[in-house]
Amino acid sequence: MKAEIITIGDELLRGEIVDSNKARIAERLLLLDLECRHQVSVLDDPADMRDAFRRAADRSDFVLVSGGLGPTRDDLTTEVLAETFGRKTVLDEKSLAVIEAFFARVGREMSDVNRKQAFFPTDADVLPNPIGTAPGFSIREGRAVFFAMPGVPRELDLMMDEQVLPRIERLLVFSEATVGATVGGSRAAPVGAPVERAERQVVRAVLLRTFGMGESTLEAELLDLAREGDVDLGFRTSFPDNFLRPVARAKTAEEADARIAQVTKAIRTRLGAIVYGEGDETMESVVGRLLAERGLSVATAESCTGGLIAERMTDVPGSSAYFLGGIVAYSNAAKVALLGVSEALLESEGAVSEPVVRAMAEGARARFGSDFGVATSGISGPDGGTKEKPVGLVWIALATAKGTHAESFVFQVDRSRHRSLSAQVALDWIRRSLLGVELVGPSLLRRGGGGSAPGGS
Amino acid sequence: MKAEIITIGDELLRGEIVDSNKARIAERLLLLDLECRHQVSVLDDPADMRDAFRRAADRSDFVLVSGGLGPTRDDLTTEVLAETFGRKTVLDEKSLAVIEAFFARVGREMSDVNRKQAFFPTDADVLPNPIGTAPGFSIREGRAVFFAMPGVPRELDLMMDEQVLPRIERLLVFSEATVGATVGGSRAAPVGAPVERAERQVVRAVLLRTFGMGESTLEAELLDLAREGDVDLGFRTSFPDNFLRPVARAKTAEEADARIAQVTKAIRTRLGAIVYGEGDETMESVVGRLLAERGLSVATAESCTGGLIAERMTDVPGSSAYFLGGIVAYSNAAKVALLGVSEALLESEGAVSEPVVRAMAEGARARFGSDFGVATSGISGPDGGTKEKPVGLVWIALATAKGTHAESFVFQVDRSRHRSLSAQVALDWIRRSLLGVELVGPSLLRRGGGGSAPGGS
Repeated sequence: MKAEIITIGDELLRGEIVDSNKARIAERLLLLDLECRHQVSVLDDPADMRDAFRRAADRSDFVLVSGGLGPTRDDLTTEVLAETFGRKTVLDEKSLAVIEAFFARVGREMSDVNRKQAFFPTDADVLPNPIGTAPGFSIREGRAVFFAMPGVPRELDLMMDEQVLPRIERLLVFSEATVGATVGGSRAAPVGAPVERAERQVVRAVLLRTFGMGESTLEAELLDLAREGDVDLGFRTSFPDNFLRPVARAKTAEEADARIAQVTKAIRTRLGAIVYGEGDETMESVVGRLLAERGLSVATAESCTGGLIAERMTDVPGSSAYFLGGIVAYSNAAKVALLGVSEALLESEGAVSEPVVRAMAEGARARFGSDFGVATSGISGPDGGTKEKPVGLVWIALATAKGTHAESFVFQVDRSRHRSLSAQVALDWIRRSLLGVELVGPSLLRRGGGGSAPGGS
Repeated sequence: MKAEIITIGDELLRGEIVDSNKARIAERLLLLDLECRHQVSVLDDPADMRDAFRRAADRSDFVLVSGGLGPTRDDLTTEVLAETFGRKTVLDEKSLAVIEAFFARVGREMSDVNRKQAFFPTDADVLPNPIGTAPGFSIREGRAVFFAMPGVPRELDLMMDEQVLPRIERLLVFSEATVGATVGGSRAAPVGAPVERAERQVVRAVLLRTFGMGESTLEAELLDLAREGDVDLGFRTSFPDNFLRPVARAKTAEEADARIAQVTKAIRTRLGAIVYGEGDETMESVVGRLLAERGLSVATAESCTGGLIAERMTDVPGSSAYFLGGIVAYSNAAKVALLGVSEALLESEGAVSEPVVRAMAEGARARFGSDFGVATSGISGPDGGTKEKPVGLVWIALATAKGTHAESFVFQVDRSRHRSLSAQVALDWIRRSLLGVELVGPSLLRRGGGGSAPGGS
C-alpha cells in the first residue's frame, strides 16, 4: 500500500513558507502503518496539477492532497481534480447550508465566491470542516483514493484526524473485496468500499519525551529494545529534548495495545525520570500538572532566560492556579531592589555566581510566598564572557522549604539554545523535586556534552 | 527556464522532520528570477530516486538535489545519480585531501566510510563544503544541470550561496551558445558552459514587515503598486504580522536596484509606521535598536502575556543596554506587593481593567527606574471570561515621562495567539512612542477585525 502527498500552492514553490503540512500528514499515516512513498508540490497551475494527479493515480493507493480549496480564483483543486478524471462539479446543498451557517456564526458577510466551496466532483464523499469554510472531499479513481483537504494547518489536522484517518483505516481493515475488483472499478463505487491488504497489521505508536540524556547514550541504553522484531524504536532530537517513538505491530488491536504498553513500560523502567512526558505533554504542562495535583506553587527569578521560564509556565491554560509570578532581573539594580540580593554580594561575586543565583531563587520564593523559587543567571552570549566566566556559563538554583540546590553548567550553544536549555533544566528540577527524585540532570547533561546533541547530518 | 527541487531521505517521508530545505532553496532561486516548478521528495530508495532523477532531466533546466551525500549506507545520491545517467564514480584526490584535513582540524578520526564522500560521477564539477565532510557536485545531463548538495541546512545554505547560485547565474547570463547546441550535448561538456536565455533579467527583492493593518486592507491600499508590470508585490501573513515582498525585474543591476528602492519608498510613504522593519528585523530588534540609539530604557509588568514581552526583548543580543527587567504579576498579591497596585483598586475594578493596567505600567517604570513601563492584563482563555469581561479582552498600557496611554482590545483568537498579539501591540507602542507617531494600532487593529487576519485557506 503506497501513500502519496501532494501539496498545492505558488507560495510553497517560491519558498515563501515552509511546508509543514507534508510532515504532519506523513506522521499520521505512519500510525496506520502506511508508508508515504512520494511527496510532491506543485504550483496553482492546472497543467502541473493534472500531471501530478494522473501520476499519483497510477502509482499510489492513497493520495493526500492539501491546499487549493479556498474561495479565490487561484484555488483550483476541486475543478482540476474533477476535470482530470472526467467528472463534473456539482453543488452540495448541505455543504452550502453549513458554509452559510459558519459565516452567520462568526458575524461575517458571506461573499459569492464562498459558494464555490460547496461544489464537489461528482460521486465525492464530502469531508466536513467544522472550523473553516472549506470542506474537503474524497474520490476514488481506479486503485487510488484521493483525499482533498484545506491547506490551513489546524483545519488540515482536524480533518486528517476526524475524517481521513478513520476512512483510511476502514479501507485497510475490511478486506471482503479484492484489489482486482476495485482497480478500474466504477466511479460510483463508494469511497468507503474495501481494499484488500495482504498482511494487515494493527499499529500502535507512542511518543515518549526525554530530557537529560544525549541521543547516542539513549540509543546505547535501549539497543536491545530497538532490535525486537515486532517493535521499531525511533529516535528524534527536538532540542533540547530527545524523543523516542516505539511503534508496535500485531495482528489484533489487543495484541498491539499490549505490546506497546509493555515496551513503553520497559523504556520507562530503564530510563526512570529521564522520560518526562508522553504525546502532547510538554515539560511545562507536566510541571503544571504535578504542582496542581499537590496544591503547590512556584515563582521565578530570571536573568539570562529573560522571562522564558515564566512565559512557558503561563502558556499552559489554568497556570494561575500554581504560578504566582516572576521577576526578570536583568539589571543588578533590579536584583537588589526586587529580589533582595545584597549589593555587596553582587560586587564581590558577580551576577553570574552561586551565591547570587541562590539569593535570587530564595528572594523569588520569599517575595511571592511560593513553595518553589527557581532562578537563572548566566552568559548566553554572543558577547559578555571572560576567562573565568566564559560565554555559555549558567548558574541555576531551586529554592524549596528544605533548602536550595544550585549548580553551574557551560552550554556551548548559541544564545537562543542557551536560554532554552537553561529554562528546561530549571523546569526539570521543579519536576524532579516534585517527584522526589534526585536533581541528576547536571551530571547526565555534562556527560552528554552540553545537553541533548542537536540532530546529525 | 524551469527549476526543480528534489529532497532525499526516509525521515522526510515519515514526517519525522519538517523539510525546510525546499523553501530555502526556492527562495534563493527566486532571486535569480528562476521559477521553481516542481518539488519532489523521495525515500533513500534507488528505484524511486532514479525515477525522480529521470523525470527531472526530462522536464527541468536546473535540478537542485539535497540529501543523501553522507557517509552511511543509506546515502545513495552520488551512486544513483551516476548510475541513472550511465556514469561511473571516480575518486577525486583533491576532495579526499580536503576531507582528511577536515577531520584532522576537528580532531576526529576519519573512518573508511568517509572516503566514499570523495567519489563523484565522471565529469562532475565538485562543489566544496568548507563546513562539513560532504562535498557537493554538479553534472550536466541533456538540457538539465543537476546540483547535488548536503541535507544539513547550514551546509546547504553556504553551498547554495557560494557555489550553486553563482554557477546558475553564469549559466543564465552568458548566452554565446544556443539551447539547441546543448540539448543532447556531450556529457563531457563542462557544467559552466552557457545556456541561452531569451530575456535575461536582474531581480531584486525586499521583505517589508508590517503590523497593525489587515491583509485585505493592505492589498487594497497597495493595489496600484501591485499592478505595475516590472514589479510583483507579494503578500504573506505571519501572525500577527503581514509581510510584503516587492520583487523588481530589470535589464541591469543598477536599474533593478533603483526600481526596488523606489517601490520600497512608495510603500513606506503610503503605509507610514505600519511598516516596522525590513529583512531579518523583528519587532523586538527594531524596538531595541531605537532604545539603544536614544539611550532610553524599558521595564515590563506582565499579567496575561506571562513574560513573553520580556522574553522577546531579551532575545536580542545586547538587550541589557536598555532592558532593565520585568515583573510577571500573575497573582493579585504580586500586583500589590511588587508593582504597588492598590488592593482597593483590584477589589473594585478587577485585575483586567484600565486603572489596574495603568498602575502596573507606572509601577514597573517606578520600580525599575526606566524611561518606559509597559503592561498587559487580559483574559487569554480558554476559560476565565465573564459577560462584562469576555475571553479575549486585554488592557495594554504604556507609561512614559509624559503620561500613560491605555486601551483595551478584544482579540478573538486562541490563547497562544492572544498572548502573541498582545505582546506585539505592547512592543509596537514602544516603537511608535520612540518614533513620535500616534499609538494608532488599536483602531487599525479593530478595523482589521482582531488584528492581522490569519492566513487564508
